[in-house]
Amino acid sequence: MSLIVVGSVAYDGVETPHGKVDRMLGGACTYISLAASYFTSVEIVAVVGDDFAPEDTALLEGHGIGLAGLERVPGKTFFWQGVYSADMNDRTTLRTDLNVFADFQPELPAAYRSQPYLLLGNIQPALQRSVRAQMTRPLLVGGDTMNYWIQDYREELLATIAEWDFLLINDGEARMLSGESNLRKAASKIVQMGPRILVVKRGEHGAVLFSGDEMFFAPGFPLERVFDPTGASDCFAGGFAGYLAGQGIDAPSGKACSADLRRAVIYGSVMGSFCCERFGVDRFRTLTRGEIDERFQQFRRLTEF
Amino acid sequence: MSLIVVGSVAYDGVETPHGKVDRMLGGACTYISLAASYFTSVEIVAVVGDDFAPEDTALLEGHGIGLAGLERVPGKTFFWQGVYSADMNDRTTLRTDLNVFADFQPELPAAYRSQPYLLLGNIQPALQRSVRAQMTRPLLVGGDTMNYWIQDYREELLATIAEWDFLLINDGEARMLSGESNLRKAASKIVQMGPRILVVKRGEHGAVLFSGDEMFFAPGFPLERVFDPTGASDCFAGGFAGYLAGQGIDAPSGKACSADLRRAVIYGSVMGSFCCERFGVDRFRTLTRGEIDERFQQFRRLTEF
Repeated sequence: MSLIVVGSVAYDGVETPHGKVDRMLGGACTYISLAASYFTSVEIVAVVGDDFAPEDTALLEGHGIGLAGLERVPGKTFFWQGVYSADMNDRTTLRTDLNVFADFQPELPAAYRSQPYLLLGNIQPALQRSVRAQMTRPLLVGGDTMNYWIQDYREELLATIAEWDFLLINDGEARMLSGESNLRKAASKIVQMGPRILVVKRGEHGAVLFSGDEMFFAPGFPLERVFDPTGASDCFAGGFAGYLAGQGIDAPSGKACSADLRRAVIYGSVMGSFCCERFGVDRFRTLTRGEIDERFQQFRRLTEF
Repeated sequence: MSLIVVGSVAYDGVETPHGKVDRMLGGACTYISLAASYFTSVEIVAVVGDDFAPEDTALLEGHGIGLAGLERVPGKTFFWQGVYSADMNDRTTLRTDLNVFADFQPELPAAYRSQPYLLLGNIQPALQRSVRAQMTRPLLVGGDTMNYWIQDYREELLATIAEWDFLLINDGEARMLSGESNLRKAASKIVQMGPRILVVKRGEHGAVLFSGDEMFFAPGFPLERVFDPTGASDCFAGGFAGYLAGQGIDAPSGKACSADLRRAVIYGSVMGSFCCERFGVDRFRTLTRGEIDERFQQFRRLTEF
């Protein structure tokens, strides 16, 4: 039983106040699958060009990530370049070369279609929907989106998330999607759009889970130094869905109980926090499950009273 | 054993998206003392003019608040008028008439000087310091300040908070006071300035406690509707210090343990949240200790995992 992850595998150029890297492994699918791999078996569906480096393939394989759905086509891999502000709360995109990603039409290998868990990274809603349609009996489906799709592809996005069990978005996106500035009212409206599990990510302020009548607030982990926030939100998604998949959660039957969902939010927060400790995916080269569980306990100490 | 509260008693004119009130009871000392009165006996030190209404005196007396230190002088009571933005995250001051508050020289009645607990609302640091000097054997002293004193009265402020056990400020002020944008680094520097207990208030994102090696994160209570945020921060202070005073906390001896401080942060958050539910101090006309403890338990449900 695997978690299928669909999204971008990319190369990134990133500058933060702590340094500059011209080209390193990145992309939502990469971050999600690395984070999820600590909790469950993961298979990815993505596309790369013929420039995709063997050592990057090896990193994914080293985490046990199934690459049968990683399509390799002639051309260059998606490239993104950005620079962060001094406090790292804003970033400016300097360059986006879609390259082979421009024609990405995710096609699930036959063996993936009967898997129970699906996490859709931030890509065009119609593509996310086409992937969902290829699954034969999913137990838990969800994903991420962004302001661009909310503004310019609203109907397509609404049709897509109507078929999801969970949605992970940030607070600005939640307000944009719902038209409500109050977080609780925004959440009520979004849950009515389909996904009965909603996680609103609030950057350094943590994340909020809405599910039925339940709300759960997780703080952001107070890092002394954020090296590079790139991918933190995707790592949250990977930790969240990876933990639920690893527990064998069955959303439609209601088995995704409050305790599981709360723990999943904390594991998501843990993975997002580790991601920020090094440039790009570097933290995942050494990270152990033991360190993850230790930070999970630190979250308990940060919040219990 | 009482909590002594020093600060402004005022009339406010407030406009929020939910309505407009031309003149109502306000001021930091008022909000602090009303919130604290649910946990401990409270005595205030403040000044009002001869326009101060009998029904406002009655409200304070009705909460058992000692008014021996409420000076009445000829002239008008401090008046503040402001308007909030649509999302209520910003407010614009339209008018500030200091009136009798301009010459406020807080003088503690003799019986107050030997009390154990002192909470200094946001007034000029030199005045806060003069009050501290009038206390003969305080067990727990702390207070609030604001950006104006941090920028323009820095040395005076540093000399003042050096004598405090706790400091309550918002995140922008913490960054300004410390010169650090990272919250943990900011807290480390501020704790070295004197107050070994620091609470950083983050508005709708809650509050963070720093004490020794401990950190504790409390979420903001997710109200469906914020009527009027005026005074919420002061009510936080009142709930926080009022709870500690009610518990008989002795800071210098180290009796203010982690569990007490964490509960104090939650009670502060509870009182701040109730404050926002009605205009001005109106919520405190009907609020009961039972409702307070119920919301305390709701905070537990919002954060436990």
